[in-house]
Parts: sequence; structure tokens; C-alpha cells
Amino acid sequence: MTTRDAVRARGRRPGGEDTRSAILHAARKSFAAKGYDKTSLRGIAREAGVDPALVHHYFDGKAALFAETLDVPVNPAELIERIMAGDVDRLGWRIVETFLGVWEPPERRDALIALVRSSMTSEEAARMLREFLGREVFGRVAASTGVPDPQLRGALAASQMIGLVVARYVIKVPALADATREQLIERIGPVLQHHLVDSGLRPE
Amino acid sequence: MTTRDAVRARGRRPGGEDTRSAILHAARKSFAAKGYDKTSLRGIAREAGVDPALVHHYFDGKAALFAETLDVPVNPAELIERIMAGDVDRLGWRIVETFLGVWEPPERRDALIALVRSSMTSEEAARMLREFLGREVFGRVAASTGVPDPQLRGALAASQMIGLVVARYVIKVPALADATREQLIERIGPVLQHHLVDSGLRPE
Repeated sequence: MTTRDAVRARGRRPGGEDTRSAILHAARKSFAAKGYDKTSLRGIAREAGVDPALVHHYFDGKAALFAETLDVPVNPAELIERIMAGDVDRLGWRIVETFLGVWEPPERRDALIALVRSSMTSEEAARMLREFLGREVFGRVAASTGVPDPQLRGALAASQMIGLVVARYVIKVPALADATREQLIERIGPVLQHHLVDSGLRPE
Repeated sequence: MTTRDAVRARGRRPGGEDTRSAILHAARKSFAAKGYDKTSLRGIAREAGVDPALVHHYFDGKAALFAETLDVPVNPAELIERIMAGDVDRLGWRIVETFLGVWEPPERRDALIALVRSSMTSEEAARMLREFLGREVFGRVAASTGVPDPQLRGALAASQMIGLVVARYVIKVPALADATREQLIERIGPVLQHHLVDSGLRPE
């Protein structure tokens, strides 16, 4: 009998790792069933049978909890805030560098590939990713830069990064699979700069 | 008994639509089993039990036959040649405009989504797409522009277009799903220009 089984067998409210697992389990169910926007931390707590304060104790907000349900143990909202806080003239390069840094370790890369893959074949997964990107990524870009069309700009930037993931890690186009991180930052940095804040590109 | 069955039952070499179907069927099998590079029109003719001249009669080369096996009735090699033949200063914009023109009709869009989807979940499909892109897309870019790293440049351009397909048609990110064709040409044109020939971007 494992420790966890023993705790359950004695009918005690699960503590520590068990509470954390129960919250993660409830969160996975809720994100899949209701999407990202309609899932609340309070609802997850209720579903998991724990006090809402415990959700906040174990997870740093909804975005971080969502990332953990996808086995990507990174707080995307925090990453994006850190990226947006720096010099706007290097924004595009900083995004590529930061995201490659997060993605390149094989275990995270596998989780990312699984996420993109499932969003291609499941409307449920596509909806979660769509709502998450809109709220936590494009919404934050909109709040940080003063440019018009922040939702379209954020979506265009995301399209380049999604395409990079697909071409480099999934289809494994040789030139991209073999490119160094530095090459990718140099080539894709100005693209994100253009998509997000219009600089980086020569006038037509 | 269908006409095709009747023809087969009488042991005649199939003619017209039947020959065409037999070639397509053999081509699908060969591309899936051997990948794009190792498939030959001669091998397909042998597999279909027809004269190699008939393959050339019905299909305008390997790239066109490949596109037909994917239910995308467009000759990609011809499209790319047409695009590369124009003014190099507008290359990026021309590519986005041409490809959106090809993809936007719903029946082609569905075939394209099916292709991207299957390349995400099947190593066989990923290999076909990878080899096809390398040979018919990046190889032709390399032959037409004098810039260094044509394989990497072609792959980067493809990554932006693949990401656009995924974000606009599959994940359906609202800002991209709702964008007009003109908006996409205006925003993504300079990105392809940068990826392929380095102009379109301001120096850092």
C-alpha cells in the first residue's frame, strides 16, 4: 500500500502532494469541459473538494495551473510579463530567445508538441489553447504596447512561433531542425518585432 | 457491378478515368511507403500496370501528382515558378497572395488542413511533406534567388505559412480567423520577404 493509498484508506482529506494532484485533476477536467475562459479557480477548488486558498497556495494563478495541466511547468503569464517589461526595441528577439530557452529541454519540448498536436485534432484542445492565447498572451501584449490591433498582432506573432514548433519539432524540416538557437533568434526576432510593434521592418 | 469492375472482370487494361484512378492509387501507396524523394513516376506506372507515358499524359510531373494524391488539385511547382518569376522586391507579398488565393476556397482549405493534421500525427505523412517541401519548394527558391542559406530561408518562410494555416484554420484564433486576405498579405508579406531575401526588414 502506498502512502497515498494509506491516506485515502483512512478517509482523511488528502494533504500535500495529494491535494495538489486533486487540484490538477479537477483543473484538467474543467479546462477540457468548459474551456479556459469559463474555468474559475473557485470552481476547481469546489470540484477538488478543497479550500480555494489551497489552490492559490499550490499554484500561481490560472495561467500557471493551466500550464501544469499540460505538463509544461512554466508560468506563461510570468514569462510574458518579464518579456514585455524589457526594452521594446529588442522585444521580438527577446521573445524568441525566451521561448526557445523554455522549449528546448526535451521533456518540455515533448509536452509542447503534445499540446500543438492535440489542438490539431481535438476541438476541445483547440478551444483551450485559443482562449488561453487570447487571454494570457495577446491580452498582455495589448496591455503593454500602445500599438493598434493588439489581438491581430499577438495572433500573428503566435502564428510564427506555432509554425516554428511544427516545422522544427514535428515535421522536422531539416534546415530548421538543424538550425542553432542563435540562428533562429537572429532570423525570427525581427519577424516578431514586426508583428508586434511594426519596427524591425523596412518601409515598403 | 460498376463499370470499373466490369472492365477489370473482362481483364482489359483500364482506360480513361480508370487508368487515372489506378495511377493515383499507386502513387498514394508509393508516396506513403517510400516518401516523396524515393518515389519515381516509372515505379508508379509499374505498380499501376500502365505505360509510363500514361502517367505523363494524365499528370504534369511528380509534384502535381503528389498534390493530387492529397486532394489539392494545384500544381505546386508551377505556382512556385510563377511566384519566383516576378519582381523580387514584391516576392513575399506575392507568395502570401498566391497561397491564400489557392487555399481560401473551402474544399481546398479542407484538404490543406487534412494534410497539416496528418503530418502532425503520422511520421509517414511528415516525411512526405518534409521531402516535398525540400525538393519542390526550398529547392526552387534556392535556384531562383542568389541569397545564402536557401534551405533555411525556405524553411523559415514555410514555418510562417504553416503557422498561419494552423492558427487561422485549425486553432481558429479569432483575430486571425477574422482577418481579411488583404490584412494578411499586408502583415505577412514583409515577413516572407525577410525570410527569403532579407529585404523588407529594417537593419537592427
